[in-house]
Amino acid sequence: MTTTATTLKGQPLDRPTLDAMLRRRLFFTPAFEIYGGVAGLFDYGPPGCSLQANIIDLWRKHFILEEDMLEIDCTVLTPHEVLKTSGHVDKFADWMCKDPKNGDILRADHFVEDVLEARLKGDKEARGEKVEEEDDPKKKKKRKQKTEAVKLEDAVVQEYSEILAKIDNYNGEELGELIKKYDLRNPATGVQPSPPVAFNLMFQTSIGPSSNLAGYLRPETAQGQFLNFAKLLEFNMQQMPFASASIGRSYRNEISPRAGLLRVREFLMAEIEHFVDPEGGKKHSRFYEVEDIELTLLDRHTQLSGKTDLRKMTIGDAVRNKVVDNETLGYFLARIHLFLAKIGVDMTKVRFRQHMENEMAHYAADCWDAELLTSSGWIECVGCADRSAYDLSVHAKKTGAPLLVRERLDEPRVFEEWQVEIEKKKFGPAFKKDGKTVETALLATSQEQREKLAKQLTDNGELELDVPGVGDGKVKVSKDLVTVEFRKRVENTREYTPNVIEPSFGIGRILYSLIEHCYWNRATDGGDEARGVLSFPPTIAPTKVLIVPLSANAQFKPFIKKISQKLRKIGISARVDDSSATIGKRYSRNDELGTPLGITIDFQTVKDNTITLRDRDSTKQVRADEDTIVSAIQTLVDGSKEWKDVEAALPAFEGQEVDVAVR
Amino acid sequence: MTTTATTLKGQPLDRPTLDAMLRRRLFFTPAFEIYGGVAGLFDYGPPGCSLQANIIDLWRKHFILEEDMLEIDCTVLTPHEVLKTSGHVDKFADWMCKDPKNGDILRADHFVEDVLEARLKGDKEARGEKVEEEDDPKKKKKRKQKTEAVKLEDAVVQEYSEILAKIDNYNGEELGELIKKYDLRNPATGVQPSPPVAFNLMFQTSIGPSSNLAGYLRPETAQGQFLNFAKLLEFNMQQMPFASASIGRSYRNEISPRAGLLRVREFLMAEIEHFVDPEGGKKHSRFYEVEDIELTLLDRHTQLSGKTDLRKMTIGDAVRNKVVDNETLGYFLARIHLFLAKIGVDMTKVRFRQHMENEMAHYAADCWDAELLTSSGWIECVGCADRSAYDLSVHAKKTGAPLLVRERLDEPRVFEEWQVEIEKKKFGPAFKKDGKTVETALLATSQEQREKLAKQLTDNGELELDVPGVGDGKVKVSKDLVTVEFRKRVENTREYTPNVIEPSFGIGRILYSLIEHCYWNRATDGGDEARGVLSFPPTIAPTKVLIVPLSANAQFKPFIKKISQKLRKIGISARVDDSSATIGKRYSRNDELGTPLGITIDFQTVKDNTITLRDRDSTKQVRADEDTIVSAIQTLVDGSKEWKDVEAALPAFEGQEVDVAVR
Repeated sequence: MTTTATTLKGQPLDRPTLDAMLRRRLFFTPAFEIYGGVAGLFDYGPPGCSLQANIIDLWRKHFILEEDMLEIDCTVLTPHEVLKTSGHVDKFADWMCKDPKNGDILRADHFVEDVLEARLKGDKEARGEKVEEEDDPKKKKKRKQKTEAVKLEDAVVQEYSEILAKIDNYNGEELGELIKKYDLRNPATGVQPSPPVAFNLMFQTSIGPSSNLAGYLRPETAQGQFLNFAKLLEFNMQQMPFASASIGRSYRNEISPRAGLLRVREFLMAEIEHFVDPEGGKKHSRFYEVEDIELTLLDRHTQLSGKTDLRKMTIGDAVRNKVVDNETLGYFLARIHLFLAKIGVDMTKVRFRQHMENEMAHYAADCWDAELLTSSGWIECVGCADRSAYDLSVHAKKTGAPLLVRERLDEPRVFEEWQVEIEKKKFGPAFKKDGKTVETALLATSQEQREKLAKQLTDNGELELDVPGVGDGKVKVSKDLVTVEFRKRVENTREYTPNVIEPSFGIGRILYSLIEHCYWNRATDGGDEARGVLSFPPTIAPTKVLIVPLSANAQFKPFIKKISQKLRKIGISARVDDSSATIGKRYSRNDELGTPLGITIDFQTVKDNTITLRDRDSTKQVRADEDTIVSAIQTLVDGSKEWKDVEAALPAFEGQEVDVAVR
Repeated sequence: MTTTATTLKGQPLDRPTLDAMLRRRLFFTPAFEIYGGVAGLFDYGPPGCSLQANIIDLWRKHFILEEDMLEIDCTVLTPHEVLKTSGHVDKFADWMCKDPKNGDILRADHFVEDVLEARLKGDKEARGEKVEEEDDPKKKKKRKQKTEAVKLEDAVVQEYSEILAKIDNYNGEELGELIKKYDLRNPATGVQPSPPVAFNLMFQTSIGPSSNLAGYLRPETAQGQFLNFAKLLEFNMQQMPFASASIGRSYRNEISPRAGLLRVREFLMAEIEHFVDPEGGKKHSRFYEVEDIELTLLDRHTQLSGKTDLRKMTIGDAVRNKVVDNETLGYFLARIHLFLAKIGVDMTKVRFRQHMENEMAHYAADCWDAELLTSSGWIECVGCADRSAYDLSVHAKKTGAPLLVRERLDEPRVFEEWQVEIEKKKFGPAFKKDGKTVETALLATSQEQREKLAKQLTDNGELELDVPGVGDGKVKVSKDLVTVEFRKRVENTREYTPNVIEPSFGIGRILYSLIEHCYWNRATDGGDEARGVLSFPPTIAPTKVLIVPLSANAQFKPFIKKISQKLRKIGISARVDDSSATIGKRYSRNDELGTPLGITIDFQTVKDNTITLRDRDSTKQVRADEDTIVSAIQTLVDGSKEWKDVEAALPAFEGQEVDVAVR
């Protein structure tokens, strides 16, 4: 597979080299590897774990603390009924088919996509055209398919392309038809797979000893937040709007996960549910703070026209021009943009892609994904959806719990309208078993209908109404059973179900994409191509400082201890490497770990208590007394200064580092 | 149920009042409550979630950062084979029985315990003795049983007491016999439950679409750490000893969880696996730092003699006197003690209880629990076990992975011993299909046997060996097929499987116990008994500062904003309460949330930019300019100063707080 992905310095990104480095440095590793591993499950080693914790820490500050969101922590185990109501039991599924020959289980849409793409690629080869990776917004992942150089008819090429453009829209039956119509075969066996069947992606279990309470591992953290809405609103002293947030694991039993950290079965999510009044255009009081921020957008219309051209636009303009549906949604898109920039994502590799109408859940009003460009294409890392009032409504309906806001109106609202009033006492006996049906039909009438019915009552002493299923479908109601009058109604409170804007972050995908964005190798400096570097910003880097003594000389030990303690005291994570490797090798190991700063302790230190500080990215060094260096480190780690500031302020040092630059 | 539990100020602890307060302030809440709830599942609301995050944060600093532990993050989903090997599939079970009448499912040991205790209590009542809560170390939880005042024979009382003393030691069959012998009946129905059957406590699921990979939700985080041992050792550059650590959720399908946060089905654990060389007495290089720390111990011998007397002893003495098995175990007990003190646990309500021999896993060398005294009795909150080499050994044996340490010896070890050497070329053809069996028998001989065999070879030109299953069980091997000689062997490296010391923290249990330890009410001040306070230390408190403007006057708004931003910038969480409630009520609400500090903005603030700072525990206030107050807050939150220091340094204020003291 060719890839057009590049490193931070624009070098071609060699995925196998990067993968080997990440394994070597234990960023992550297949879970249960000594037992042969399980697809889609990964463990994070110390640097991955620390990177994840730092991203989460920054997320919490950027979103939760900044806006006083209500963080809650709900259980992963979820009973059947909750996910039945939310729609997940019925709809959270992918289509899978089975190869009857070798038993391979294939995800149907991926299978169709792969085979058709391979044929198109074969066609291009046969035509002698250059085969390049497509930059298709729909494609989350590339799978390997062997291609044969076979020329297709022009009309067939057209058909295949059209199918691929709307591959997300086919249901199981339609995918089955495509497999038959185009005789799509599993390359591994040469046979057609069986017709697709729905496979629910939730892990099932049973709760309690009697095995009769079916449950699932949650597929998202959102439901727990919705179920607690009434309590959260009360905790927030009935004030609207407000947001809840959760950070926690979710689970999806992917049919055949094969893309490393980008498609896994157990993953960390960070989700915000911002509850907002649906009336008044979903304004946001802090929108003015972000309106000049420029985002890279790929809107629905552009995609509909078959293009992937990116547009730069301020979020202010995007909302004003109705590219983005409302201020609250726009506010969060901008905040997501700022968050990604803060953790060190390469902002030239970010776009916000709007969902197509048929891509969204039926209840969603608008939805944008923040996608990051990686060696696997554009990857959806953050979703930002307007879920409307759907979730709160269905849970309220199912349980009878009042998941709504009661707002005291400053000015009572006065309605003048046709009102229907039923004489309950006489009405029931008059219609007997049909009473309820007739009543419902009467109450369901529109204002226009009621005006007419009122006239009938006045004119004829009775009204006539269509009530299918009762008698011959026409029902007469006399004026002693019902009144229809034009009246005034006053409301002092207003009840409404809030709408939900949901920014939802896949932390593992962000973490992996960030690694690719921060990766490069020293060939740029005329150095060694094999020497990888991960240029994480200091705030995010797993370890902030490497401490290396020049040698194992015992004189260095007290200095190591003193500096370690000083750094620990101000909360800066440091590691000592007193192995016998050369200083160059030790720094090189820490370039791969993304450690931004290095301290060297040498014989000069023993004499005058000065130490050197090395910058990972430039490999430049400065030298000063211990306290000066420690406070320089603090400003670099808290982000208040950059290396160039430190370099300008402190004397350069060009001693022992020499061996790093050339090896 | 009576309880002898007390509040922080020694008041009787009224559990229902505390529970109501925790619900009202949304510390935690039954999960899925609007769907009727699921036993043993709880959600943490904003204050509980923040308290949990602060405990974890401090845990990470106290253990992981302080000792450069390798933190890893493994999956919860675990395939069958792993937990089969670890012994969990076969042994991680409780005994349950069923009431044939109403279908109640009962945990057998709890059922026997409850009924016998109820009878003993009834006996005491009948004898007119005072019925008090026992302080039994084995009892993790109290369950309700109605008692009838029925006098028992003295011998029966004796029998019951003996059974209760060793209730943890009965297996299912024995529990079944007790139920029959003493005719134990479910009070709800008056019938005897069915014989106990084993119920595995792991939640089962299946991984992947073909449903044939059985998996479980992990019951502990430890296994993931063991499986990654070889990679972690390499990451640590082969240096021993070292520790890994994991913070994450684990799952236990409790038969009938009924004790709030103390017995739940989904819970957060923080576990350390410290890998240590089993040779040399498991010394710890930092033991000297903790040896003078005094712990409250309840050792095995005291418990065996039927007593619960606590002994105070320095950990240095405990290890020297072999009360605690070794330095490494002792080091961690002391570190656990320091951690509990740091988060604000009442240290008069902590004891370290040693496991009885039959209480530990068969492989464990020693095990101590840190138990906290609560209204539910002594609760095991931290376990600290020496798991020996058990886990690494069984996984290595099952998978063939080398989960061991290869240590280069500074001085080679020289062994002089009888060695058996086989002439492979001739040996195989000579014995044909029995070759492997005979070879194995030869190599399995002891030094003594070999000495004799060598003599046989010299004397007879052949040796005779017992090899059951080959021929008549006696096999002759001639000297051209084998040599047995006394030789010198030199080893330059040593291979060993490390032992594991495992401190394992149940974060939810610690959190709940901590809440009880920090709880009291204002009746002590002559104030209102209904006014609860949670005196969390500032480092742990969910929110550090409450900001209250005297009224809704618009003049106060810019001050609120400025102070909020200043606090946020230095990472201190604050909340504004600008509701129309009285200042007293607003402070009172925040006493219940455990917010240690309060800032009031009043008309004086508008004039001279001074604000008042209130201490939650004493309700005393000081007044100074904004910057002085903010830096006082910083020193209180980072723990470098206490309120009395601040009170001594800044002028007291006795204005608006008046209404708090009286209401």
